[in-house]
Amino acid sequence: MSLLEKTIKSIEPVNSQLERKAQQHLDNLTKPRGSLGRLEEFARRYCSIIGDLDPPYPRKVICVFAGDHGVAEEGVSAFPKEVTFQMVRNFLSGGAGINVLARHVGAEVRVVDIGVDHDLSGLPGLILRKVAWGTANFTKGPAMTREQAIAAIEVGIEIAREMVASGFRLLGTGEMGIANTTPASAITAVLCSESPETVTGRGTGIDQKAWQKKVEVIRAGIALNQPDPTDPIDVLAKVGGFEIGGICGFILGAAAQGCPVVLDGFISSAGALVAYRLAPQVSQYLFAGHCSVEQGHRVQLSHMGLSPIIDLNLRLGEGTGAALAMGLIEAGLKIYKEMATFSGAGVSPGSEAEDMGP
Amino acid sequence: MSLLEKTIKSIEPVNSQLERKAQQHLDNLTKPRGSLGRLEEFARRYCSIIGDLDPPYPRKVICVFAGDHGVAEEGVSAFPKEVTFQMVRNFLSGGAGINVLARHVGAEVRVVDIGVDHDLSGLPGLILRKVAWGTANFTKGPAMTREQAIAAIEVGIEIAREMVASGFRLLGTGEMGIANTTPASAITAVLCSESPETVTGRGTGIDQKAWQKKVEVIRAGIALNQPDPTDPIDVLAKVGGFEIGGICGFILGAAAQGCPVVLDGFISSAGALVAYRLAPQVSQYLFAGHCSVEQGHRVQLSHMGLSPIIDLNLRLGEGTGAALAMGLIEAGLKIYKEMATFSGAGVSPGSEAEDMGP
Repeated sequence: MSLLEKTIKSIEPVNSQLERKAQQHLDNLTKPRGSLGRLEEFARRYCSIIGDLDPPYPRKVICVFAGDHGVAEEGVSAFPKEVTFQMVRNFLSGGAGINVLARHVGAEVRVVDIGVDHDLSGLPGLILRKVAWGTANFTKGPAMTREQAIAAIEVGIEIAREMVASGFRLLGTGEMGIANTTPASAITAVLCSESPETVTGRGTGIDQKAWQKKVEVIRAGIALNQPDPTDPIDVLAKVGGFEIGGICGFILGAAAQGCPVVLDGFISSAGALVAYRLAPQVSQYLFAGHCSVEQGHRVQLSHMGLSPIIDLNLRLGEGTGAALAMGLIEAGLKIYKEMATFSGAGVSPGSEAEDMGP
Repeated sequence: MSLLEKTIKSIEPVNSQLERKAQQHLDNLTKPRGSLGRLEEFARRYCSIIGDLDPPYPRKVICVFAGDHGVAEEGVSAFPKEVTFQMVRNFLSGGAGINVLARHVGAEVRVVDIGVDHDLSGLPGLILRKVAWGTANFTKGPAMTREQAIAAIEVGIEIAREMVASGFRLLGTGEMGIANTTPASAITAVLCSESPETVTGRGTGIDQKAWQKKVEVIRAGIALNQPDPTDPIDVLAKVGGFEIGGICGFILGAAAQGCPVVLDGFISSAGALVAYRLAPQVSQYLFAGHCSVEQGHRVQLSHMGLSPIIDLNLRLGEGTGAALAMGLIEAGLKIYKEMATFSGAGVSPGSEAEDMGP
């Protein structure tokens, strides 16, 4: 059995009884029942995923998967392709958005070269796991072979295992890859049975004309390659990207280890969609960090039954939305662990209604 | 001229040129222009309010104003009135929700007795500024006199001045007062010309029958006291509360000192509404921390042209939503101050479209 098959088989459903017990504890704290809304959800879900009703505060890490895209040559991005490797250097020297926001919430950053079209060997701190030097242009054939798609997913699984083995207990997804909203849109269109127009946005900032071109490129890639919507690996191989495959595997690997994952935006959620189609129970391990400006993101999240934590019109990627959301998940956990109980603080309990619907 | 009049007169409009300059700096950072969405808005607004294009990271404080409400005897809350003073003790011993979340974001907490119906003198750390021992029941007459309303506002102004004098440069509002969604709803109905049904929610957790009673209590209080919607102090006096007056003054005082204020939820925004009607330019100094479950909150925010930062189904008050939002505002400021520029990081700039509308 392959690493991928073994990983999928070992993903257990989350223990819902622990979630109920965690909520009972939350209901004894000095606040009206349920009044901390989603912070309470974050705490009880974290406890049930980790399988511990008194978990320590987690060490947190954002893994940024970087890859290049042959389809960039179709002019679908506002930035030139070399920005992928330039930004990898920026991540490693600590000057990018994800570095700033990860520091802000106390998370570490790991950067994985899973498919950058540039020689990055020797860069201190970089995790070198290149499957290939960028994907092929999917308007001329498949983006990668099926073997490469599986290899990318297995890199992600291994990275997740390494992170859990290093003691991290809250993992975040991130990515870098010029043009990667194009494969993410293609995957989303195929796996969610939507038209390319519906799920294609402006990426880093293209104008209306370039957007129309991008939609045509996606439509052409799907028509040429005919990805099979019932076979998520086929979809990843034909119109995907290496960093998207890596994120897919990272999610599967984390879930198999009983570790929660915070999704970033549109690209990360394309990876999550592939993982979800391979193993639907992974959605129980996911927190949707934010809602991106990319219009396909809501489609992806609703497909997986996930509700975004923040909505601040972000469209940077890199893991920035995941980092901010980690700070809020941790806030929920602090409520759970640090607040006084009614009896402990000498506060009279209320007589609240069970039904708090509006 | 009274302290209130002087304060209102000294509130200047925020310098919009500084905001444009701050955005120019943001546009040189290694990210597509505008791709950090509202984080960029927070940074440029903070700079322009403070009047400094390279501001230090602010010391942050949440001021929790506590007061009691005569109208609590009408059975409008799920909690007994003594919970107000019990929770004040909980705030001072560090076990309440606001303590946990303020620590999480690195903010301090100050607690002000502006109208609690209990002798709290001698409690270490409490700021004693009691205007009266709770309001009167507004279904039987005005909640307070006009002089008391002005006194409450002036307490808030003084607290804001003291906080700025102590070196705080990001202030958050908080409150505690059993039954205080009732005066907040009444103020909102009158100042926003809405029906009590539209702006009244379930507070700490009352059932449908108690909600109907609450709406009737608000309707009766407005009918009896006839607050003048063109005179915000009259509205505060007749159907308001001391902590709401304190928050109103706190906002006016902060704006007069050129210091930004992060609003918490529905009660805080009722105080903000009174301040906004006294001096509409205060809205330029406000960040709407979150969107409460209380249905009137959106009405208040849209009245002042404010857009909430988080929306996590919170309905606790105390300043909890403001604290979480402070963490995100600070994240924006860190982006502004810590990210690398394109030239500094050796990253190629893009050719982004000016129009990024969807």
